[in-house]
Amino acid sequence: MYEGAVQDLIDELGRLPGIGPKSAQRLAFHILEADGDDMKRLVAAITTVKERVKFCQICGNVSEQETCSICRDPRRDPSVICVVEESKDVVAVERTRAFRGRYHVLGGAINPIAGIGPDQLRIRELLGRLNDDAVIEIIIATNPNLEGEATSTYLARMLQSIGIKVTRLASGLPVGGDLEYADEITLGRAFEGRRSAIG
Amino acid sequence: MYEGAVQDLIDELGRLPGIGPKSAQRLAFHILEADGDDMKRLVAAITTVKERVKFCQICGNVSEQETCSICRDPRRDPSVICVVEESKDVVAVERTRAFRGRYHVLGGAINPIAGIGPDQLRIRELLGRLNDDAVIEIIIATNPNLEGEATSTYLARMLQSIGIKVTRLASGLPVGGDLEYADEITLGRAFEGRRSAIG
Repeated sequence: MYEGAVQDLIDELGRLPGIGPKSAQRLAFHILEADGDDMKRLVAAITTVKERVKFCQICGNVSEQETCSICRDPRRDPSVICVVEESKDVVAVERTRAFRGRYHVLGGAINPIAGIGPDQLRIRELLGRLNDDAVIEIIIATNPNLEGEATSTYLARMLQSIGIKVTRLASGLPVGGDLEYADEITLGRAFEGRRSAIG
Repeated sequence: MYEGAVQDLIDELGRLPGIGPKSAQRLAFHILEADGDDMKRLVAAITTVKERVKFCQICGNVSEQETCSICRDPRRDPSVICVVEESKDVVAVERTRAFRGRYHVLGGAINPIAGIGPDQLRIRELLGRLNDDAVIEIIIATNPNLEGEATSTYLARMLQSIGIKVTRLASGLPVGGDLEYADEITLGRAFEGRRSAIG
């Protein structure tokens, strides 16, 4: 519907995840009318990320060097590995400041419908780290959904068979939440996982 | 929270309209993991639009030349001008195939809260076209919302005072809609604008 260059841009933007045809059109017109320097910065940011950012050779987290800043940090405890699905989960856990070990990024979760099995995840690399390092605990922090739970179960069985301590993040009521509005699965998990109320 | 280049990209993406912090993060990781050639095409599409696409000197529509393909087309009737807010509205009207005249793109609508008055719109350029061309009708096709109606009223008064025929797109029930679910303002407009049911 538009002349060449504008339509090309709408098509390219429409290929991005979560950007429908209407959003692609709105973004294209924003780009068209925006300040030239702002758009140069956007283009430079995309180009720089593609040129400079790699994945850590140890944990798979995003990194501008061969290994990421967490794997390079000697103050991080090498005996505990927190397994997450994506790099953004590393950021979420780091924000809690509750974890001082290292990470392993799987690059997704087991999802047979999308054709993602254990071989498509960085599980071989995780096993490799267990030979090298003095790892005593693996904390599985995959998402509390169907795919994350399947991945967690798979990893737990595999790692327990080679005699390593495997834990899973607690499920239960979100802090600040309302019991009345908790879904029944979450509330059921909160009952299963109940603890002594005295210290 | 992320290393330099990734955070820079999240920041730049977050400046785009309708892209919140979570979407910016998801898009940045998509770009990071995407095929390099796909991202080169995206960057090229942005760069090409910024370099090549201009606004038609006559009507203000987007164009890769000094004048747009509609203003250059000798088959389009120069005696009727359809006034719209944005270039995307030109595309919407073209899709109907019901209009064979020319356009004038205002570049927005009157919106005092956003600091957009008549002087910020391409109204002077519209008046300039009325001197040159043999225009006999102006069809106002601004959006049927508060800003669009204000712009329509302003234009209609100004153009009528210089003795030109000014019409406005009909308001009423959307085709395929359900009377029961029409809002009261739309239904009221449909009553006001009722026509003879016989031919």
